[in-house]
Amino acid sequence: MNENRIIYLPLGGAGEIGMNAYVYGYGKPGEEELILVDLGVTFPDMDGTPGVDLIFPDIAWLAERRDRLKAIFVTHAHEDHVGAVAHFWERLGAPVYARAFTANIARRKFEEQGLKPETVLTASPWPETVKAGAFGVSFLPISHSIPESSALVIDIPEERLIHTGDFKIDLTPVVGEPFERAAWEEVAKPGVKALICDSTNVFSTHEGRSEATVGPEIERLLSEARGMVVATTFASNVARLKTLAEAGEKAGRSIVLMGRAMRRMIEAAVETGVLRGFPSTVPVEEAGQIPRENLMLIVTGSQGERRAASAQLARGKHHGMELKEGDLFLFSSKTIPGNEKGVIRIMNQLSEKGVDVVDDNAGRYHVSGHANRPDLEAMHDIVKPQIVVPMHGEHRHLREHVKLAERRGLQGVLAVNGTMVELSGNAPKVVDYVETGRTYLDGSVKVGALDGVVRDRIRMALNGHATVTLVVDEDDEALGDPWVDLMGLPETGRSRQPLVEVLEEELAAVVARAGKKTLADDDKLEETLRRAIRNGAQDEIGKKPEVTVVISRLS
Amino acid sequence: MNENRIIYLPLGGAGEIGMNAYVYGYGKPGEEELILVDLGVTFPDMDGTPGVDLIFPDIAWLAERRDRLKAIFVTHAHEDHVGAVAHFWERLGAPVYARAFTANIARRKFEEQGLKPETVLTASPWPETVKAGAFGVSFLPISHSIPESSALVIDIPEERLIHTGDFKIDLTPVVGEPFERAAWEEVAKPGVKALICDSTNVFSTHEGRSEATVGPEIERLLSEARGMVVATTFASNVARLKTLAEAGEKAGRSIVLMGRAMRRMIEAAVETGVLRGFPSTVPVEEAGQIPRENLMLIVTGSQGERRAASAQLARGKHHGMELKEGDLFLFSSKTIPGNEKGVIRIMNQLSEKGVDVVDDNAGRYHVSGHANRPDLEAMHDIVKPQIVVPMHGEHRHLREHVKLAERRGLQGVLAVNGTMVELSGNAPKVVDYVETGRTYLDGSVKVGALDGVVRDRIRMALNGHATVTLVVDEDDEALGDPWVDLMGLPETGRSRQPLVEVLEEELAAVVARAGKKTLADDDKLEETLRRAIRNGAQDEIGKKPEVTVVISRLS
Repeated sequence: MNENRIIYLPLGGAGEIGMNAYVYGYGKPGEEELILVDLGVTFPDMDGTPGVDLIFPDIAWLAERRDRLKAIFVTHAHEDHVGAVAHFWERLGAPVYARAFTANIARRKFEEQGLKPETVLTASPWPETVKAGAFGVSFLPISHSIPESSALVIDIPEERLIHTGDFKIDLTPVVGEPFERAAWEEVAKPGVKALICDSTNVFSTHEGRSEATVGPEIERLLSEARGMVVATTFASNVARLKTLAEAGEKAGRSIVLMGRAMRRMIEAAVETGVLRGFPSTVPVEEAGQIPRENLMLIVTGSQGERRAASAQLARGKHHGMELKEGDLFLFSSKTIPGNEKGVIRIMNQLSEKGVDVVDDNAGRYHVSGHANRPDLEAMHDIVKPQIVVPMHGEHRHLREHVKLAERRGLQGVLAVNGTMVELSGNAPKVVDYVETGRTYLDGSVKVGALDGVVRDRIRMALNGHATVTLVVDEDDEALGDPWVDLMGLPETGRSRQPLVEVLEEELAAVVARAGKKTLADDDKLEETLRRAIRNGAQDEIGKKPEVTVVISRLS
Repeated sequence: MNENRIIYLPLGGAGEIGMNAYVYGYGKPGEEELILVDLGVTFPDMDGTPGVDLIFPDIAWLAERRDRLKAIFVTHAHEDHVGAVAHFWERLGAPVYARAFTANIARRKFEEQGLKPETVLTASPWPETVKAGAFGVSFLPISHSIPESSALVIDIPEERLIHTGDFKIDLTPVVGEPFERAAWEEVAKPGVKALICDSTNVFSTHEGRSEATVGPEIERLLSEARGMVVATTFASNVARLKTLAEAGEKAGRSIVLMGRAMRRMIEAAVETGVLRGFPSTVPVEEAGQIPRENLMLIVTGSQGERRAASAQLARGKHHGMELKEGDLFLFSSKTIPGNEKGVIRIMNQLSEKGVDVVDDNAGRYHVSGHANRPDLEAMHDIVKPQIVVPMHGEHRHLREHVKLAERRGLQGVLAVNGTMVELSGNAPKVVDYVETGRTYLDGSVKVGALDGVVRDRIRMALNGHATVTLVVDEDDEALGDPWVDLMGLPETGRSRQPLVEVLEEELAAVVARAGKKTLADDDKLEETLRRAIRNGAQDEIGKKPEVTVVISRLS
């Protein structure tokens, strides 16, 4: 069994929605030539990753095999696909390929990291093919919620794989290429071994809607608006930005874009020619001169992000603009699970200002960028693969997608991050499990998710922190009493005495009772003090703080 | 203007969903006799209140006027209405009235707090009236998602108010009293000054559904289940528990209840006679002897709570029960905003076990306990109040409810927590703003939300913590170098040297440069060290930690 094989190994994105990173390999076992598809980020939250700036996949496995890595392909410019490329490029070192718009975004990220932007190479769409070792890879246009999203046609000697990337089947996507069935059928014709397929919306059983259906709804809404209008959506959803701006223009409003991410996306879209005919906009500095009923702001922050324009406007004045009674605020977006509280906070702040808020509860002012179940079925039918490998989904999505494929007579394989699947046999086969995980960007440092750094921070958030200091002299005698400093703990507890004093008394008694042996032994003394303060606090305030013990020995 | 007046003052629950506490007063301004309606809790989260156990309204205003407080009335036994009564009773001291089931639950809470359970008095439903100073208060049955929910008919000389409590209009509520239109019309007949009204579902424009419609859907679902079935819902939703258990019984399954809160609710419901004909249950210890296809577990934890039965079952074995491939898990519940991630975590863990998860996405297996907009309108129509005072809602709900009332020709008044409204004039009038806020139960201690305790914990969670210690001798000379201890911070940064060492070197240099004046001055020295470590860390790891500086002076 030393024949060439095809392997698939997700390092991120399979078993979660976020930080996509998919490895494909071809060659003799253990010597495969490798390519990487996408390298994205996930966003942290207070719940599990307080203080973390970004979350990356752990690419250790791939970095150790960088000599075998032939290229990195980026399917589209969403952060969960492109966001980590520049952060890890020095450890991987392979050429990066993307289509023009995606490459434009990726290059900006390379520059931010002090890397050469020209490392990112622009690829033309299918039928042009990028050679990378044994692989021939083409970017096959597909519709999604950002321009120039592409599936990858991955040709390996004798076999063809198709990696859909994120997609929906949209014949009128407003910006970017409509889904071109004929091209897809042509690509599928020679036979496709495996379809590695987006699973995000597998639980949505209704027909998907085209981006083009959103505009008329928004126009209707705007026709009734009397005050200023503010609309928010994902900064990267260039089609939606256009839909919103055109609706505003038709309603006789001047368009103002607010938020760095949004202006940057529009800039990249214009530079690369994917966006044409975008209504002319007014700089925010000049907006004050326009009557508010003739204004439409399109702003970042649809997920309630505290620093984005929408949150700033909800709190008060932002760049001279201020919302008031009778204005309209439109969420042309879906709230991602976990972001509800932030979005609701904004809605209530707007309510306090008398602003009318319209969200997408009824599914009118937003459509998803991902294929619903009927579109997934259509994709299966067009590609007719032997195997369906669901990706871009939590475990439940992948499992449901496997079931869907199997019901339709296809082979399905459930492979979460770290599962190496051999695709070249008669049936997909799990051949290895690779250690995967998460890497945190914390300030300017990358730390492993299991390093304990964030765990300690969570513990301090839950339990507070106590510092105990004791000075011990040359004869191992305590010099004075232990001192206690507290952070994040109440000032008084059960006894109504200051907590610091209660604990210091307790510790002084413990030190007085401690034998010479304990005082001479740092570990023993530290443990004694730690236990005493934790138990003392439990008794007094019902909580055991995290403790730092500092023993200063004079010597 | 020294005539008697009627005032309404929400201390919690108005401008938020949770910790309800509504004060009514009657008398000369500043001398009103007072009653309190409900005194509930809100649940903390990692985002804003890490480590906190429960959140209460700040009742300082009321406690300062306890001599004028005549009684506390509890409308129903949900935690956000009854949860704080026992915690604050000693500061308020007034008799507590509730109907039998609610009183049973409240008494258990009094016992837990070491208070006399007989403080809680059982009231009979309308037309019986409780006298409390100038007030006459009746408990008027109304349907909701827990037994014996009641509106309060509050009679004050010359005027009648109706406080709905939480409600829906359900003619077939499975457990508890159906909405009795005739009784409500009779109560409304003399004329109602103000309707203080639940606003939770004001944005739900469709007709509400009766609890009785849920059973047939669940029966259909169970008829197709082949393995073990687990269903979760709110522990307090006794009607749903009955619906689930009866559906399980019809499907030939033995019913097992798991979760303390759920068994406690059933116990209280049986003790007080509100629950009859509940299918017989099997203790979990005996469940192992029953074939799994004949079992239905009804479990706590519909909101993804980590310690509840549903989360435990999703993680592994719990009380000897273990889920496996082919089992069915039903969420007969709605996910409260903010709890999505916890619920999704469970869904994915179940998916990993091969368990099929059914949730209420389609609105089939759960109905809300609150009145949708058509039912709110019906309530307005039945009561025909002069004024509608929306409560039990975030700002956006209250505002929408005011608009709804005004569109229908009623006076509406938007009063968030702390807004004192005079209801006795020709139109409602805001007469005062009272300072309100939140009190945290943190371990065993009550701390004010603004005390800074939790703020410091959040800062440590975001930024980590550093301890700096320096021993200074009798001559104000540093004795040795400063020591640094870190918690929740990476071990190395930019320079790849151990972070502790980098910072200690930095601090040693700072101390060496510091003049005698600085070394002699605790505040100055502390500030110097703090600034040095924060800047040093920023440079090295891109993060400024929270700092505890301990200066030990030998003297």
